[in-house]
Amino acid sequence: REETVSEQKVYRGNIITVSKVFVTLPNGKQASRDIVTHPGAAVVIPVNEEGEVFMVRQFRKPLEKTLLELPAGKLDPGEDPRDCALRELYEETGLKCKELRYLTRIYSTPGFCNEVLYIYMATGLELGDAHTDDDEFLTREKHHISKLMEMVLDGTISDAKTIVGIMLAARHLGL
Amino acid sequence: REETVSEQKVYRGNIITVSKVFVTLPNGKQASRDIVTHPGAAVVIPVNEEGEVFMVRQFRKPLEKTLLELPAGKLDPGEDPRDCALRELYEETGLKCKELRYLTRIYSTPGFCNEVLYIYMATGLELGDAHTDDDEFLTREKHHISKLMEMVLDGTISDAKTIVGIMLAARHLGL
Repeated sequence: REETVSEQKVYRGNIITVSKVFVTLPNGKQASRDIVTHPGAAVVIPVNEEGEVFMVRQFRKPLEKTLLELPAGKLDPGEDPRDCALRELYEETGLKCKELRYLTRIYSTPGFCNEVLYIYMATGLELGDAHTDDDEFLTREKHHISKLMEMVLDGTISDAKTIVGIMLAARHLGL
Repeated sequence: REETVSEQKVYRGNIITVSKVFVTLPNGKQASRDIVTHPGAAVVIPVNEEGEVFMVRQFRKPLEKTLLELPAGKLDPGEDPRDCALRELYEETGLKCKELRYLTRIYSTPGFCNEVLYIYMATGLELGDAHTDDDEFLTREKHHISKLMEMVLDGTISDAKTIVGIMLAARHLGL
């Protein structure tokens, strides 16, 4: 364990907060840790009866790249991850679902950030209209889960949460 | 795409740097993005001939939790990810390897951070002494890859890079 000696907020952004935390190490020495605080997020694998998954392609400014990802979004304050999953699924793809199955929760980058991602598989899909956020621009794509597994293995899909979601869903679907 | 209008460094930490970037959205509106810059990292799945994987358990301050993870560490400036993988493998587990196979590279959290993780599988292992960094306290554990897959599926393993590495290695090993 590392005990907190003091903590200094160094930046408060729209979504993340950054702190410099001074700690005592197990050997009694002092060290500092830069910690990014994130509200957490929900991720959805929406699979139809043909085994096709609805995905979103969006520009990611930190990478200056467009990535193919599972629908996902951050938790509103106090929001249940399950409600967040349903909300983001609808906002990003226009889909509603009859069943939402919890698969797991993962930590994206525990070395410097507390972000936790709750991963769900959505089935019994019904298509409506997509309602994206004002500053969110994305295109929708549909790929068979077998094709997505290939894209994971050949490196075409590179987003960590998406890889975890696709590989877990493939196992659950018996692939 | 989102074009950068201006960029403001808001924090320079030991490992990460945080910037507030003002962008023009595809609809012409302005927005700001908080971006964490990270040097990137290498991750290793060290597997012996019995199918056992060498892991590390370490305290993660952002979560106030101890996690079971694959050996990994951040890139030194200008360091080849392959060299980083070999270095971190030795520093964290005391292992050297005869073969290091590149599996893929993943983005841990592309919404707000540019961190990229290069994932390798190490075989032909030889055990020496572990040499951890001064402020890194970890314990070593060895688990069979089948057991680790169970721990991924039941949520015992929750670190994203570790889940991706274990699942990819399991496929490569024909599990």
